Amino acid sequence: MSSQPAGPEIERLIQLLARLPGLGPRSARRAALRLIKKRETLLLPLASALAAAGAAIKVCAQCGNIDTRDPCSVCADPRRDRTLVCVVEDVSDLWALERAGVLGGLYHVLGGTLSPLEGIGPKDLNLENLIGRAQAPEVKEVLLALNATVEGQTTAHYIMDRLHGLDVKISKLAHGVPVGGELDYLDEGTLAAAIRARQPF
Amino acid sequence: MSSQPAGPEIERLIQLLARLPGLGPRSARRAALRLIKKRETLLLPLASALAAAGAAIKVCAQCGNIDTRDPCSVCADPRRDRTLVCVVEDVSDLWALERAGVLGGLYHVLGGTLSPLEGIGPKDLNLENLIGRAQAPEVKEVLLALNATVEGQTTAHYIMDRLHGLDVKISKLAHGVPVGGELDYLDEGTLAAAIRARQPF
Repeated sequence: MSSQPAGPEIERLIQLLARLPGLGPRSARRAALRLIKKRETLLLPLASALAAAGAAIKVCAQCGNIDTRDPCSVCADPRRDRTLVCVVEDVSDLWALERAGVLGGLYHVLGGTLSPLEGIGPKDLNLENLIGRAQAPEVKEVLLALNATVEGQTTAHYIMDRLHGLDVKISKLAHGVPVGGELDYLDEGTLAAAIRARQPF
Repeated sequence: MSSQPAGPEIERLIQLLARLPGLGPRSARRAALRLIKKRETLLLPLASALAAAGAAIKVCAQCGNIDTRDPCSVCADPRRDRTLVCVVEDVSDLWALERAGVLGGLYHVLGGTLSPLEGIGPKDLNLENLIGRAQAPEVKEVLLALNATVEGQTTAHYIMDRLHGLDVKISKLAHGVPVGGELDYLDEGTLAAAIRARQPF
Protein backbone atom coordinates (compact mmCIF):
# COMPACT_ATOMS: atom_id res chain seq x y z
CA MET A 1 0.00 0.00 0.00
CA SER A 2 1.51 3.32 -1.05
CA SER A 3 0.57 6.56 0.68
CA GLN A 4 -0.29 8.07 -2.72
CA PRO A 5 -1.98 5.57 -5.01
CA ALA A 6 -1.33 7.43 -8.23
CA GLY A 7 1.36 7.48 -10.87
CA PRO A 8 4.65 9.41 -10.52
CA GLU A 9 3.41 12.13 -12.91
CA ILE A 10 0.49 12.89 -10.58
CA GLU A 11 2.70 12.79 -7.47
CA ARG A 12 5.14 15.21 -9.08
CA LEU A 13 2.27 17.54 -10.00
CA ILE A 14 0.99 17.51 -6.40
CA GLN A 15 4.48 18.24 -5.03
CA LEU A 16 4.91 21.26 -7.29
CA LEU A 17 1.42 22.61 -6.62
CA ALA A 18 2.08 22.35 -2.87
CA ARG A 19 4.89 24.90 -3.30
CA LEU A 20 2.45 27.62 -4.42
CA PRO A 21 1.58 30.15 -1.72
CA GLY A 22 -1.83 29.43 -0.25
CA LEU A 23 -1.75 25.73 -1.12
CA GLY A 24 -0.67 23.11 1.42
CA PRO A 25 -0.30 19.38 0.80
CA ARG A 26 -4.03 18.75 1.16
CA SER A 27 -5.21 21.58 -1.09
CA ALA A 28 -2.48 20.70 -3.59
CA ARG A 29 -4.05 17.24 -3.90
CA ARG A 30 -7.48 18.81 -4.37
CA ALA A 31 -6.07 21.17 -6.99
CA ALA A 32 -4.35 18.29 -8.80
CA LEU A 33 -7.61 16.31 -8.88
CA ARG A 34 -9.54 19.31 -10.21
CA LEU A 35 -6.88 19.76 -12.91
CA ILE A 36 -6.99 16.09 -13.86
CA LYS A 37 -10.78 16.06 -14.03
CA LYS A 38 -10.79 19.19 -16.17
CA ARG A 39 -8.00 18.07 -18.46
CA GLU A 40 -9.16 19.89 -21.61
CA THR A 41 -10.48 23.09 -20.02
CA LEU A 42 -7.99 23.63 -17.18
CA LEU A 43 -4.96 21.32 -17.08
CA LEU A 44 -3.77 21.67 -20.65
CA PRO A 45 -4.56 25.44 -20.84
CA LEU A 46 -2.65 25.99 -17.59
CA ALA A 47 0.32 24.00 -18.91
CA SER A 48 0.50 26.19 -22.01
CA ALA A 49 -0.16 29.42 -20.06
CA LEU A 50 2.79 28.57 -17.80
CA ALA A 51 5.02 27.81 -20.76
CA ALA A 52 3.93 31.02 -22.51
CA ALA A 53 4.47 33.16 -19.40
CA GLY A 54 7.81 31.46 -18.76
CA ALA A 55 8.95 32.38 -22.25
CA ALA A 56 7.58 35.92 -22.20
CA ILE A 57 8.36 37.36 -18.75
CA LYS A 58 10.89 40.14 -18.53
CA VAL A 59 12.06 42.36 -15.68
CA CYS A 60 11.84 46.05 -16.56
CA ALA A 61 15.39 47.43 -16.58
CA GLN A 62 14.13 50.84 -15.46
CA CYS A 63 11.75 50.06 -12.59
CA GLY A 64 12.09 46.34 -11.79
CA ASN A 65 8.45 45.55 -12.64
CA ILE A 66 7.67 42.15 -14.13
CA ASP A 67 5.99 42.25 -17.49
CA THR A 68 6.18 40.64 -20.89
CA ARG A 69 8.05 43.63 -22.29
CA ASP A 70 10.99 45.82 -21.27
CA PRO A 71 10.48 48.70 -20.58
CA CYS A 72 7.30 47.50 -18.85
CA SER A 73 3.82 48.71 -19.81
CA VAL A 74 3.85 51.29 -17.00
CA CYS A 75 7.23 52.80 -17.94
CA ALA A 76 6.32 52.67 -21.65
CA ASP A 77 2.95 54.38 -21.18
CA PRO A 78 3.26 57.98 -22.48
CA ARG A 79 0.29 59.10 -20.34
CA ARG A 80 2.20 58.43 -17.13
CA ASP A 81 3.39 61.30 -14.95
CA ARG A 82 7.19 61.02 -15.16
CA THR A 83 7.74 63.49 -12.30
CA LEU A 84 6.52 60.99 -9.68
CA VAL A 85 8.33 57.76 -8.80
CA CYS A 86 6.57 55.48 -6.31
CA VAL A 87 8.93 53.08 -4.49
CA VAL A 88 7.44 49.70 -3.55
CA GLU A 89 8.87 46.56 -2.00
CA ASP A 90 7.49 44.04 -4.43
CA VAL A 91 5.71 43.65 -7.75
CA SER A 92 2.61 42.57 -5.82
CA ASP A 93 2.50 46.04 -4.20
CA LEU A 94 2.76 47.64 -7.64
CA TRP A 95 -0.17 45.51 -8.80
CA ALA A 96 -2.17 46.48 -5.70
CA LEU A 97 -1.57 50.20 -6.29
CA GLU A 98 -2.44 49.82 -9.98
CA ARG A 99 -5.74 48.21 -9.01
CA ALA A 100 -6.49 51.34 -6.99
CA GLY A 101 -5.73 53.22 -10.21
CA VAL A 102 -4.94 56.62 -8.70
CA LEU A 103 -1.16 56.94 -8.83
CA GLY A 104 -0.60 57.91 -12.44
CA GLY A 105 3.19 58.07 -11.95
CA LEU A 106 5.97 55.55 -12.40
CA TYR A 107 7.18 52.87 -10.00
CA HIS A 108 10.41 51.54 -8.63
CA VAL A 109 10.37 47.97 -7.32
CA LEU A 110 13.02 47.32 -4.65
CA GLY A 111 12.59 43.56 -4.63
CA GLY A 112 12.49 43.34 -0.83
CA THR A 113 13.42 45.25 2.30
CA LEU A 114 16.64 45.70 4.22
CA SER A 115 17.01 42.93 6.75
CA PRO A 116 20.35 42.59 8.55
CA LEU A 117 19.11 39.43 10.27
CA GLU A 118 18.48 37.74 6.94
CA GLY A 119 21.64 39.23 5.46
CA ILE A 120 19.78 41.49 3.02
CA GLY A 121 21.76 44.70 2.59
CA PRO A 122 21.37 47.67 0.23
CA LYS A 123 23.31 45.87 -2.52
CA ASP A 124 20.74 43.05 -2.57
CA LEU A 125 17.95 45.48 -3.45
CA ASN A 126 17.26 47.45 -6.62
CA LEU A 127 18.49 50.60 -4.85
CA GLU A 128 21.41 52.15 -6.74
CA ASN A 129 19.17 52.33 -9.76
CA LEU A 130 16.68 54.36 -7.70
CA ILE A 131 19.32 56.89 -6.60
CA GLY A 132 20.19 57.32 -10.27
CA ARG A 133 16.54 57.79 -11.26
CA ALA A 134 15.94 60.31 -8.46
CA GLN A 135 18.75 62.46 -9.87
CA ALA A 136 17.09 62.71 -13.30
CA PRO A 137 15.86 66.29 -13.80
CA GLU A 138 12.27 65.26 -14.65
CA VAL A 139 11.73 63.48 -11.31
CA LYS A 140 10.20 65.89 -8.78
CA GLU A 141 8.81 63.51 -6.15
CA VAL A 142 9.70 60.10 -4.73
CA LEU A 143 6.78 58.48 -2.88
CA LEU A 144 7.97 55.78 -0.47
CA ALA A 145 5.04 53.35 -0.52
CA LEU A 146 6.70 50.67 1.61
CA ASN A 147 4.78 48.42 3.94
CA ALA A 148 4.01 49.83 7.38
CA THR A 149 6.16 47.13 8.97
CA VAL A 150 9.43 47.53 10.88
CA GLU A 151 11.42 46.32 7.86
CA GLY A 152 9.48 48.53 5.45
CA GLN A 153 9.92 51.63 7.57
CA THR A 154 13.62 50.92 8.21
CA THR A 155 14.11 50.66 4.48
CA ALA A 156 12.15 53.88 3.92
CA HIS A 157 14.40 55.73 6.38
CA TYR A 158 17.51 54.34 4.70
CA ILE A 159 16.27 55.52 1.29
CA MET A 160 15.41 58.93 2.74
CA ASP A 161 19.00 59.25 4.00
CA ARG A 162 20.39 58.23 0.64
CA LEU A 163 18.18 60.73 -1.24
CA HIS A 164 19.04 63.52 1.21
CA GLY A 165 20.39 66.58 -0.57
CA LEU A 166 18.88 65.70 -3.95
CA ASP A 167 16.37 68.12 -5.40
CA VAL A 168 13.34 65.83 -5.00
CA LYS A 169 10.37 65.91 -2.68
CA ILE A 170 10.15 62.70 -0.61
CA SER A 171 6.69 61.61 0.51
CA LYS A 172 5.06 58.62 2.17
CA LEU A 173 1.57 57.13 2.25
CA ALA A 174 -0.92 58.54 4.76
CA HIS A 175 -1.78 56.49 7.82
CA GLY A 176 -5.41 56.29 8.89
CA VAL A 177 -8.59 54.28 9.10
CA PRO A 178 -8.98 51.93 6.11
CA VAL A 179 -12.05 52.77 3.99
CA GLY A 180 -14.82 50.47 5.23
CA GLY A 181 -12.82 49.71 8.37
CA GLU A 182 -14.47 49.47 11.78
CA LEU A 183 -12.78 51.40 14.57
CA ASP A 184 -13.37 48.58 17.00
CA TYR A 185 -11.10 46.27 15.02
CA LEU A 186 -8.26 48.73 14.47
CA ASP A 187 -5.07 48.81 16.51
CA GLU A 188 -4.21 51.78 18.71
CA GLY A 189 -1.35 52.90 16.47
CA THR A 190 -3.64 53.28 13.46
CA LEU A 191 -6.29 55.09 15.51
CA ALA A 192 -3.69 57.45 16.99
CA ALA A 193 -2.34 58.20 13.50
CA ALA A 194 -5.86 58.81 12.17
CA ILE A 195 -6.60 61.23 15.00
CA ARG A 196 -3.32 63.12 14.60
CA ALA A 197 -3.91 63.47 10.86
CA ARG A 198 -7.61 64.37 11.23
CA GLN A 199 -9.17 66.42 8.45
CA PRO A 200 -11.87 69.13 8.43
CA PHE A 201 -15.26 67.58 7.64
CA MET B 1 -3.92 52.84 -16.29
CA SER B 2 -4.91 49.21 -16.50
CA SER B 3 -6.15 47.28 -13.50
CA GLN B 4 -3.49 44.62 -14.14
CA PRO B 5 -0.22 46.15 -15.28
CA ALA B 6 1.27 43.00 -16.76
CA GLY B 7 1.28 41.31 -20.13
CA PRO B 8 -1.57 39.15 -21.45
CA GLU B 9 0.41 35.95 -20.77
CA ILE B 10 0.58 36.82 -17.06
CA GLU B 11 -3.09 37.81 -16.92
CA ARG B 12 -4.08 34.52 -18.52
CA LEU B 13 -1.95 32.62 -16.02
CA ILE B 14 -3.63 34.43 -13.10
CA GLN B 15 -7.10 33.70 -14.51
CA LEU B 16 -6.38 29.98 -14.79
CA LEU B 17 -4.75 29.74 -11.36
CA ALA B 18 -7.81 31.44 -9.83
CA ARG B 19 -9.90 28.46 -10.99
CA LEU B 20 -7.99 26.04 -8.75
CA PRO B 21 -9.79 25.11 -5.53
CA GLY B 22 -8.39 27.05 -2.58
CA LEU B 23 -7.13 29.95 -4.71
CA GLY B 24 -9.13 33.14 -5.15
CA PRO B 25 -8.20 36.09 -7.37
CA ARG B 26 -5.82 37.52 -4.78
CA SER B 27 -3.99 34.30 -3.98
CA ALA B 28 -3.87 33.47 -7.71
CA ARG B 29 -1.92 36.69 -8.23
CA ARG B 30 0.43 35.78 -5.39
CA ALA B 31 0.86 32.30 -6.86
CA ALA B 32 1.55 33.74 -10.32
CA LEU B 33 4.20 36.07 -8.90
CA ARG B 34 5.86 33.23 -7.01
CA LEU B 35 5.88 31.17 -10.19
CA ILE B 36 7.35 34.03 -12.22
CA LYS B 37 10.06 34.70 -9.65
CA LYS B 38 10.97 31.02 -9.51
CA ARG B 39 10.93 30.49 -13.25
CA GLU B 40 13.58 27.78 -13.42
CA THR B 41 12.73 25.88 -10.24
CA LEU B 42 8.93 26.13 -10.18
CA LEU B 43 7.25 27.64 -13.25
CA LEU B 44 8.91 25.58 -15.96
CA PRO B 45 8.85 22.33 -13.90
CA LEU B 46 5.14 22.86 -13.20
CA ALA B 47 4.47 23.49 -16.89
CA SER B 48 6.11 20.20 -17.84
CA ALA B 49 4.56 18.31 -14.90
CA LEU B 50 1.11 19.43 -16.09
CA ALA B 51 1.85 18.41 -19.65
CA ALA B 52 3.21 15.04 -18.48
CA ALA B 53 0.22 14.38 -16.21
CA GLY B 54 -2.16 15.49 -18.95
CA ALA B 55 -0.63 12.98 -21.32
CA ALA B 56 -0.42 10.12 -18.81
CA ILE B 57 -3.66 10.15 -16.81
CA LYS B 58 -6.07 7.26 -17.28
CA VAL B 59 -9.28 6.25 -15.56
CA CYS B 60 -9.18 2.66 -14.30
CA ALA B 61 -11.82 0.70 -16.23
CA GLN B 62 -12.41 -1.59 -13.24
CA CYS B 63 -12.70 0.80 -10.29
CA GLY B 64 -12.82 4.36 -11.68
CA ASN B 65 -9.60 5.44 -9.92
CA ILE B 66 -7.40 7.99 -11.66
CA ASP B 67 -3.87 6.82 -12.31
CA THR B 68 -1.27 6.76 -15.04
CA ARG B 69 -2.08 3.14 -15.85
CA ASP B 70 -5.20 1.06 -16.42
CA PRO B 71 -5.87 -1.11 -14.42
CA CYS B 72 -4.74 1.34 -11.72
CA SER B 73 -1.93 0.56 -9.28
CA VAL B 74 -4.45 -0.53 -6.62
CA CYS B 75 -6.32 -2.94 -8.89
CA ALA B 76 -3.04 -4.22 -10.37
CA ASP B 77 -1.40 -4.85 -6.98
CA PRO B 78 -1.37 -8.64 -6.37
CA ARG B 79 -1.07 -8.12 -2.58
CA ARG B 80 -4.55 -6.55 -2.42
CA ASP B 81 -7.43 -8.40 -0.82
CA ARG B 82 -9.78 -9.03 -3.73
CA THR B 83 -12.66 -10.13 -1.48
CA LEU B 84 -13.25 -6.55 -0.21
CA VAL B 85 -14.51 -3.69 -2.42
CA CYS B 86 -14.67 -0.27 -0.77
CA VAL B 87 -17.13 2.12 -2.46
CA VAL B 88 -16.16 5.83 -2.33
CA GLU B 89 -17.66 8.97 -3.85
CA ASP B 90 -14.52 10.44 -5.31
CA VAL B 91 -10.88 9.74 -6.07
CA SER B 92 -9.96 12.16 -3.28
CA ASP B 93 -11.70 9.82 -0.80
CA LEU B 94 -9.71 6.88 -2.20
CA TRP B 95 -6.51 8.87 -1.69
CA ALA B 96 -7.55 9.74 1.87
CA LEU B 97 -8.23 6.09 2.72
CA GLU B 98 -4.94 5.02 1.13
CA ARG B 99 -3.11 7.53 3.33
CA ALA B 100 -4.65 5.78 6.34
CA GLY B 101 -3.18 2.62 4.82
CA VAL B 102 -5.43 0.09 6.56
CA LEU B 103 -7.94 -1.03 3.94
CA GLY B 104 -5.91 -3.54 1.96
CA GLY B 105 -8.85 -4.24 -0.38
CA LEU B 106 -9.94 -2.80 -3.70
CA TYR B 107 -11.97 0.33 -4.39
CA HIS B 108 -14.89 1.43 -6.47
CA VAL B 109 -15.13 5.16 -7.27
CA LEU B 110 -18.71 6.30 -7.94
CA GLY B 111 -17.74 9.72 -9.24
CA GLY B 112 -20.36 11.54 -7.15
CA THR B 113 -23.57 10.98 -5.24
CA LEU B 114 -27.20 10.71 -6.26
CA SER B 115 -28.75 14.16 -6.30
CA PRO B 116 -32.23 14.51 -7.82
CA LEU B 117 -32.04 18.30 -7.34
CA GLU B 118 -28.92 18.51 -9.50
CA GLY B 119 -30.28 15.92 -11.92
CA ILE B 120 -27.69 13.29 -10.98
CA GLY B 121 -29.31 9.86 -11.22
CA PRO B 122 -27.92 6.32 -10.99
CA LYS B 123 -26.92 6.35 -14.66
CA ASP B 124 -24.63 9.34 -14.09
CA LEU B 125 -22.57 7.41 -11.56
CA ASN B 126 -20.19 4.48 -11.97
CA LEU B 127 -22.87 2.20 -10.50
CA GLU B 128 -23.79 -0.58 -12.94
CA ASN B 129 -20.15 -1.57 -12.96
CA LEU B 130 -20.31 -1.96 -9.18
CA ILE B 131 -23.34 -4.26 -9.35
CA GLY B 132 -21.37 -6.37 -11.81
CA ARG B 133 -18.29 -6.45 -9.58
CA ALA B 134 -20.35 -7.38 -6.50
CA GLN B 135 -21.63 -10.46 -8.34
CA ALA B 136 -18.13 -11.80 -8.97
CA PRO B 137 -17.59 -14.91 -6.84
CA GLU B 138 -14.36 -13.62 -5.22
CA VAL B 139 -16.08 -10.53 -3.75
CA LYS B 140 -17.27 -11.24 -0.21
CA GLU B 141 -17.77 -7.74 1.22
CA VAL B 142 -18.78 -4.32 -0.10
CA LEU B 143 -17.82 -1.49 2.30
CA LEU B 144 -19.86 1.66 1.63
CA ALA B 145 -17.38 4.40 2.62
CA LEU B 146 -19.53 7.31 1.47
CA ASN B 147 -19.48 10.69 3.15
CA ALA B 148 -21.69 11.06 6.24
CA THR B 149 -23.80 13.66 4.41
CA VAL B 150 -27.44 13.41 3.34
CA GLU B 151 -26.38 12.79 -0.29
CA GLY B 152 -23.76 10.24 0.70
CA GLN B 153 -26.14 8.31 2.92
CA THR B 154 -28.97 8.44 0.36
CA THR B 155 -26.59 6.98 -2.19
CA ALA B 156 -25.46 4.32 0.30
CA HIS B 157 -29.08 3.28 0.88
CA TYR B 158 -29.72 3.12 -2.88
CA ILE B 159 -26.65 0.91 -3.38
CA MET B 160 -27.73 -1.30 -0.48
CA ASP B 161 -31.12 -1.79 -2.18
CA ARG B 162 -29.47 -2.61 -5.48
CA LEU B 163 -27.10 -5.15 -3.88
CA HIS B 164 -29.96 -6.75 -1.92
CA GLY B 165 -30.15 -10.49 -2.54
CA LEU B 166 -26.57 -10.84 -3.73
CA ASP B 167 -24.26 -13.06 -1.71
CA VAL B 168 -22.09 -10.24 -0.34
CA LYS B 169 -21.75 -8.71 3.08
CA ILE B 170 -22.49 -4.97 3.02
CA SER B 171 -20.76 -2.79 5.62
CA LYS B 172 -20.27 0.88 6.40
CA LEU B 173 -17.71 2.98 8.26
CA ALA B 174 -18.08 3.33 12.04
CA HIS B 175 -19.34 6.62 13.44
CA GLY B 176 -17.63 8.06 16.51
CA VAL B 177 -15.28 10.60 18.00
CA PRO B 178 -12.40 11.44 15.61
CA VAL B 179 -8.99 10.45 16.97
CA GLY B 180 -7.59 13.58 18.63
CA GLY B 181 -11.04 15.17 18.61
CA GLU B 182 -12.35 17.22 21.52
CA LEU B 183 -15.85 16.36 22.71
CA ASP B 184 -16.65 20.04 23.22
CA TYR B 185 -16.32 20.72 19.49
CA LEU B 186 -18.30 17.73 18.26
CA ASP B 187 -21.91 17.85 17.15
CA GLU B 188 -24.63 16.03 19.05
CA GLY B 189 -25.15 13.46 16.28
CA THR B 190 -21.54 12.31 16.43
CA LEU B 191 -21.59 12.17 20.23
CA ALA B 192 -24.83 10.19 20.22
CA ALA B 193 -23.36 7.75 17.69
CA ALA B 194 -20.18 7.38 19.74
CA ILE B 195 -22.20 6.65 22.87
CA ARG B 196 -24.47 4.11 21.14
CA ALA B 197 -21.44 2.31 19.69
CA ARG B 198 -19.41 2.45 22.92
CA GLN B 199 -16.76 -0.19 23.42
CA PRO B 200 -15.44 -2.00 26.50
CA PHE B 201 -12.29 -0.29 27.77
